[in-house]
Amino acid sequence: MSKYDLSQDLKRITSTTMADIVELRLREYLKKKSFKPGDPLPKELELAEALGVSRNVVREALSRLRMLGMIESKKKRGMILARPDILGAFERVLDPLIIDKDTLQDIFELRLVLEIGLADLLYIRKTDKDIEELEHIAKNEVRTESSFRIKNEIAFHGKLYEISGNDTLKRFQNMLLPIFGYVVASEKEFRSGKVTHSDLVEILKKGNKEDFRQGMLEHLKPHFDKLEKTETTDTLTD
Amino acid sequence: MSKYDLSQDLKRITSTTMADIVELRLREYLKKKSFKPGDPLPKELELAEALGVSRNVVREALSRLRMLGMIESKKKRGMILARPDILGAFERVLDPLIIDKDTLQDIFELRLVLEIGLADLLYIRKTDKDIEELEHIAKNEVRTESSFRIKNEIAFHGKLYEISGNDTLKRFQNMLLPIFGYVVASEKEFRSGKVTHSDLVEILKKGNKEDFRQGMLEHLKPHFDKLEKTETTDTLTD
Repeated sequence: MSKYDLSQDLKRITSTTMADIVELRLREYLKKKSFKPGDPLPKELELAEALGVSRNVVREALSRLRMLGMIESKKKRGMILARPDILGAFERVLDPLIIDKDTLQDIFELRLVLEIGLADLLYIRKTDKDIEELEHIAKNEVRTESSFRIKNEIAFHGKLYEISGNDTLKRFQNMLLPIFGYVVASEKEFRSGKVTHSDLVEILKKGNKEDFRQGMLEHLKPHFDKLEKTETTDTLTD
Repeated sequence: MSKYDLSQDLKRITSTTMADIVELRLREYLKKKSFKPGDPLPKELELAEALGVSRNVVREALSRLRMLGMIESKKKRGMILARPDILGAFERVLDPLIIDKDTLQDIFELRLVLEIGLADLLYIRKTDKDIEELEHIAKNEVRTESSFRIKNEIAFHGKLYEISGNDTLKRFQNMLLPIFGYVVASEKEFRSGKVTHSDLVEILKKGNKEDFRQGMLEHLKPHFDKLEKTETTDTLTD
């Protein structure tokens, strides 16, 4: 473990600017002094003097922390430590156009892992109203226009994340959607397993969580098949 | 969907500084002009003139993009668009000390979802060498000192993510570790299900992916039980 951590740290230090150093120092300071959300921060000028750098550099570093939602400016009270929005920063760099191919594939697999693992939370938290809404979405599955099918696909799976009752998970999947859309659009044909959305709703109504997981595996089967195929090809060409 | 997107956008505009506006404009510009990784960016001064703002504000906005790994400065070539490190930004705000309780709980659940969903990737990618390493880690499970058990727990589950062959997933779990450590440490006793790490290795050797998933569910049972219990309590007090 420690080896792995070390390589991560070393990676982060490369191509350092003054703003990088000041940002790091401020993070260390906030941690060392056990700042809590709501606590007021020292003024920009005080920080610049203590660090022996210009106010511009301090402003640059503070601006980064503000972007991450770690600090907020309050009228009369000045800057305070805020509750950061942990997914906000992530969202800013999630653009399929600038993410490399391997990472896109990784994220696509992450979706498969999440949807198979979701069954337990769904069975703990699903309500009759949820099932009704899901049934309504699934009814429209039969329409064949490709653009509609992708939208419907997103609505159905998005509703499943909503039922999980986990806001972080729901927001996470919501911001991964452009990635899935990009991967799906780059495939030659729209593929779905033998188990349809309507079948999945039936299982949620009458079956147990194991039945649902099997159903979801069957529903996502074309994607898993593709992974297995790629894996075999990789081994053969090694 | 469009309704939800709208509310996200509106949320982002609140408490706007000049750096926020310039950052947004630069993002829109990069997208509109279809910048690709490696493409050179206009100079700071040119950007400031085009936007009608000071160089300091442009520098602040560029500094944010640099922090997210979206742009890099190259000697002689100036700034270029880079491949962003999608998890780097996320990592910066993941500190259990400043994350609120609900989000901590969400992230803990996310781990449960991932570990149950991981079985399919594991069975596609595991090698004999992986199993050997896992077996070695599991052998030490019997030692009872609490600090050692937590380290061993992390080593075992970390190795599973490594076997998944998904770098994004592995890094993701690696940066979630402080959160898990925090949640586990806040529990009164170290709890583990009837299925041990050694049992899980045996299943990986001889059983199929369904056996493994059942084993993992049993291994994580105390955590799932706690979720069900909380859920029931919530409903009763509603």
